[in-house]
Amino acid sequence: MHIMIIGGAGMLGQKLASAILANGEPLTTGCKKLTLVDIVEPDVALIKSGSICEGIEIETITGDFSDGLRLSQIASERPDVIYHLAAVVSGEAEANFDKGYEANVKASWGLLEALRAEHEASLGGYCPRVVFSSSLAVYGPPFPDVVGEEFYLRPASCYGTQKAMVELLVSDYSRRGFIDGISVRLPTIVVRPGRPNAAASSFLSSIIREPLKGEKTILPVSPSSVVWVSSPKVTIENFVRTGLLSAKETAETRVMNLPGLKVSVGEMIDGLKEVGGSELAELIVPETDEVVSKIVLSWPSQFVTERAVQLGLIGDVDFVSIVRQHVEETSAQ
Amino acid sequence: MHIMIIGGAGMLGQKLASAILANGEPLTTGCKKLTLVDIVEPDVALIKSGSICEGIEIETITGDFSDGLRLSQIASERPDVIYHLAAVVSGEAEANFDKGYEANVKASWGLLEALRAEHEASLGGYCPRVVFSSSLAVYGPPFPDVVGEEFYLRPASCYGTQKAMVELLVSDYSRRGFIDGISVRLPTIVVRPGRPNAAASSFLSSIIREPLKGEKTILPVSPSSVVWVSSPKVTIENFVRTGLLSAKETAETRVMNLPGLKVSVGEMIDGLKEVGGSELAELIVPETDEVVSKIVLSWPSQFVTERAVQLGLIGDVDFVSIVRQHVEETSAQ
Repeated sequence: MHIMIIGGAGMLGQKLASAILANGEPLTTGCKKLTLVDIVEPDVALIKSGSICEGIEIETITGDFSDGLRLSQIASERPDVIYHLAAVVSGEAEANFDKGYEANVKASWGLLEALRAEHEASLGGYCPRVVFSSSLAVYGPPFPDVVGEEFYLRPASCYGTQKAMVELLVSDYSRRGFIDGISVRLPTIVVRPGRPNAAASSFLSSIIREPLKGEKTILPVSPSSVVWVSSPKVTIENFVRTGLLSAKETAETRVMNLPGLKVSVGEMIDGLKEVGGSELAELIVPETDEVVSKIVLSWPSQFVTERAVQLGLIGDVDFVSIVRQHVEETSAQ
Repeated sequence: MHIMIIGGAGMLGQKLASAILANGEPLTTGCKKLTLVDIVEPDVALIKSGSICEGIEIETITGDFSDGLRLSQIASERPDVIYHLAAVVSGEAEANFDKGYEANVKASWGLLEALRAEHEASLGGYCPRVVFSSSLAVYGPPFPDVVGEEFYLRPASCYGTQKAMVELLVSDYSRRGFIDGISVRLPTIVVRPGRPNAAASSFLSSIIREPLKGEKTILPVSPSSVVWVSSPKVTIENFVRTGLLSAKETAETRVMNLPGLKVSVGEMIDGLKEVGGSELAELIVPETDEVVSKIVLSWPSQFVTERAVQLGLIGDVDFVSIVRQHVEETSAQ
């Protein structure tokens, strides 16, 4: 099996690559070649660290993914499973209208077209599994308390619009048999390693990550705010499992919300205290940011994810486990 | 006011143009110029017949709407209201994958981009009302008995996918203030004038139209089949009203299902008998077509249309009135 990750240098892309290379993982034992595609060079040494990765060829393709020629090159390798994780993130897609549509819609559509060309060149024999990383931003307010699986798409951002458009394309190209695609909508990933970023959700990682390093951090929302999160490890496991669903399973479910954990910010801080000690909470400085509060309160905090659960996908069991996972991963590095 | 109809040579486009030219219509008295855009030359003489159209300049632009240069030309006229009715129909969009996406998504997107360029060239002063003619094909089975306004988009055809993608674009370009757009999803239009076409719904017009001309016609489905229809006149009236909604109203409702009439095929035939005489039913020859039956039974037969009703849009009151309307219109020609 040849697995390709587009966006292979990103946080999730690198973690997914590591998981695939960990040959002990029973779900991925069939992988013989792993290709990482990104606009920046993926850190292959980091990806390999701690993995067995015997007998797996690793290839990197670095360059602009919206380049038509490169898309043909990518497709001509006829990978069996393609994870499409590359995106211009929400803030940037809103600030730079053209760049967002170019990268998030046109380049994704170009990829599907390149795969369709290979499908046709192979007289229909080539039909890759495509796992498209989508977002709950395809929804928009007002929301019901729990968002059902048949709730309609009304994105309130360029990013959400772009993700919804590509979901539609992935489903239609799959319905026509050119690819075997599935779109998965991710919860907010917590705890992200590294530094804070410009995302409104960034503090959700910072309030755990920084105190564990002994650093102060700001809490811009009320502790009663409720969010929908998933740990990196569970998200990666769900990517792996989605890539290996049967064609019959994806034929019935072309789009799904991944399982998440509904948790209040106060409960998150309790989890931090349980793992790292009560004194860590003192490093979290409440300083309400009305803009961030408004954005976070506009997000739905619970989704029905029955389809995903029926397909064997998993959620985090509690927030304490998510904090422990982060501590284990950072201490291992 | 300058009104433009893209798809101005089609059945609905021509009827809409006639309605706008009928200056007596209080809703459209502000129109000073009407531009008809289509790949074939619109029949201006036919459109003018029976209309007052004093003081309204009529312009036609004939050519391929997917041509970028032409799109810039169209936009550079800065029409106040643009009706976008042009489409490759469902059967053709499914049979010719590339053509469908080119015409139904890329050309529509190109139009929005050309309007955005004018918006920016005018430093934001130009922000036209865009009424996009969408379709209930954005939905896909299985359906609830009544499809609610928050039911999700899961198109089961290329055509439905394409319409859903453009709805998303119209909403996002509107949210960003480049245009003031609204997408309206039409019921099946009955009675269509002219000849039968390749659409699975074609017989719904034929079973009324042909007997009224004394011609035999085939009924391919059971009389108990229930459908969701709208007359040409009511549909046109709804287009006119949608074009004249306030910016506040469209800001709250960027997509809506137009009101329709839920009616069984048997009730349609009863309406024909009431208007034209019982003997006309003998010209309808039952001859079940499994393919057509399956398609028609897969369509939802009732939709919630509260948003449209609140905005003052209307539905047909009963099927007898629809038959009478057809008789009046054909005898007037």
